[in-house]
Amino acid sequence: MIDLHDGSFDDLAARTQRRIDRKTKPLGALGRLEALALLLARVLGTDAPRLLAPQLVVFAADHGIAAQGVSAYPAEVTAQMVLNMLAGGAAVSVLARQHGLALTVVDCGVKSDLPPHALLRVAKTCQGSADSTLGPALTRAQNDAALAHGAALVCSLPGNVLLLGEMGIANTSPAALLMVRLTGLPISACAGRGTGLDDAGLAHKLAVLQRALDRHAHLQEPAQWLAALGGPEIATMAGAVLQAAEERRVIVVDGFITTAAVALAAAIAPPVLQRCVFAHGSAENGHARWLAQLGAAPLLDLGLRLGEGSGAALAWPLLKSAELLLAEMASFDSAGVSERES
Amino acid sequence: MIDLHDGSFDDLAARTQRRIDRKTKPLGALGRLEALALLLARVLGTDAPRLLAPQLVVFAADHGIAAQGVSAYPAEVTAQMVLNMLAGGAAVSVLARQHGLALTVVDCGVKSDLPPHALLRVAKTCQGSADSTLGPALTRAQNDAALAHGAALVCSLPGNVLLLGEMGIANTSPAALLMVRLTGLPISACAGRGTGLDDAGLAHKLAVLQRALDRHAHLQEPAQWLAALGGPEIATMAGAVLQAAEERRVIVVDGFITTAAVALAAAIAPPVLQRCVFAHGSAENGHARWLAQLGAAPLLDLGLRLGEGSGAALAWPLLKSAELLLAEMASFDSAGVSERES
Repeated sequence: MIDLHDGSFDDLAARTQRRIDRKTKPLGALGRLEALALLLARVLGTDAPRLLAPQLVVFAADHGIAAQGVSAYPAEVTAQMVLNMLAGGAAVSVLARQHGLALTVVDCGVKSDLPPHALLRVAKTCQGSADSTLGPALTRAQNDAALAHGAALVCSLPGNVLLLGEMGIANTSPAALLMVRLTGLPISACAGRGTGLDDAGLAHKLAVLQRALDRHAHLQEPAQWLAALGGPEIATMAGAVLQAAEERRVIVVDGFITTAAVALAAAIAPPVLQRCVFAHGSAENGHARWLAQLGAAPLLDLGLRLGEGSGAALAWPLLKSAELLLAEMASFDSAGVSERES
Repeated sequence: MIDLHDGSFDDLAARTQRRIDRKTKPLGALGRLEALALLLARVLGTDAPRLLAPQLVVFAADHGIAAQGVSAYPAEVTAQMVLNMLAGGAAVSVLARQHGLALTVVDCGVKSDLPPHALLRVAKTCQGSADSTLGPALTRAQNDAALAHGAALVCSLPGNVLLLGEMGIANTSPAALLMVRLTGLPISACAGRGTGLDDAGLAHKLAVLQRALDRHAHLQEPAQWLAALGGPEIATMAGAVLQAAEERRVIVVDGFITTAAVALAAAIAPPVLQRCVFAHGSAENGHARWLAQLGAAPLLDLGLRLGEGSGAALAWPLLKSAELLLAEMASFDSAGVSERES
């Protein structure tokens, strides 16, 4: 399906590296922005990559497992925060506005139905998932529908950059469950405080999540884990990521929950990871270790733990800088600047 | 001169923190952006800080010590790179354009005279400094003039944010010399490869710098170190920093050389540091340790080692985000979002 290693790949990388090295700066002096420019060239398949019509998509849903008391916030906050995003008052709204990112919120399975809005897409597979401690979070049919919704959504969006965001009270729980199955690490290394559980709350969350893991321990396939342990927004996002990778879009990964969707997609189609820029290292327990296992070095490390796509939006100007430096900086020849002596 | 600890200071910080905590997000979920918003409030003296007309100033000069072969690039590159900046082809030109930062290049002591340009200010104290291995880099009169030039420059610029940049072949050498005197660390912990010296080049640089230190070992005052060991752009920048701090401007510090100017200014007027945002940790040897000694945690860590103000420009959108999140995010009350249960 996705194959970056076509014949011209090494040529392209070498050609792009030469362009970077002729810019008026010491070799390597722009550090990770140079690697980022090279990544943009690889993903977009040109040594003159341009980022077009970036789309920040917030995948929203509710989770049956919230009934087990695994979040510091009540479940109705998911719908309230979606309305806040649509009204322009959420952190992601402010950041999308700052950077000219087109914002779309997708109702993948919010418990209540939301009033129509220009920025809202409805792609519901359920009114909140089922409780994975009692049975699968999504049926196989719901899970397949969510994956298809995500792919169709990306097909309908312009541009060549997808920035991932999410909103869903309790959704660090399904993300941690997927991390356990995808990485083989114990739940204590994968689950964290989410929006701010105290020690007792965290201990309770760990016990609940272990029950969900035990119930579905027999499942052996990533797509089965996704349905049983995941959730509507994670499945829809995984579908979107698979489609975006297929179309050679640049995928900007936010925090812990979006990493779950990307890691799941990569378990199905490993080259997905080659399309990804990891925006930031979240303060959520487990994220740093997961990124390391994926071989990902995030651009920012600001102690964020909000989700929504806030970290992806904050990292966006760095992608834009990498693009513009490659496109607009003068070369030693064009600027008449002398080169190094040694 | 500068006193942030007026009576209203603690009130202001507490009031701003309350505003941050009422925003629609879990407590502390925006991580370092929350601390940054608080810093902006403190510097600008209001719980509703707005960043106005940000000025990116590149201080440029040549250095007599370049004749000792301490840089990988020939000295004429300083003037060539200034022309490149003015023509819009340097990294800092691209980044200033991306972010709408007003760019000014100040000729503080470039060897050759440059043709007039709308973005160029001439504030020369010399045609390149003298060689500090043979005598003081600047005379006391030149040093005083440079400090005054920097102050006058800031007075003439609009806005309330000063982003620091510099250009000067060999200027990691005076910066490292100042670091030795200001921190008490040995030259091997302070000097690095600059634009890309190899091992032999670095060993030679260390020997040259030790000679300069030995020659001026009797000097005991920061202002004397600045004249004897520094350089025209560092002294002018130090004057600009002192004036900007006095006027309560936000000062955005770039890499190793701008840190030298700020550390020197802070040695004269310690509260200067309270006005500073440290943009990034440079790959230049010594920078991380200097920042740690100053108690500064840089926002970005991207392996940059270019100078020019490139790191300050790259960090700028994060300052803007902190401002906008504080100004534009809804509160729990205004958005009708439920609060945490526990």
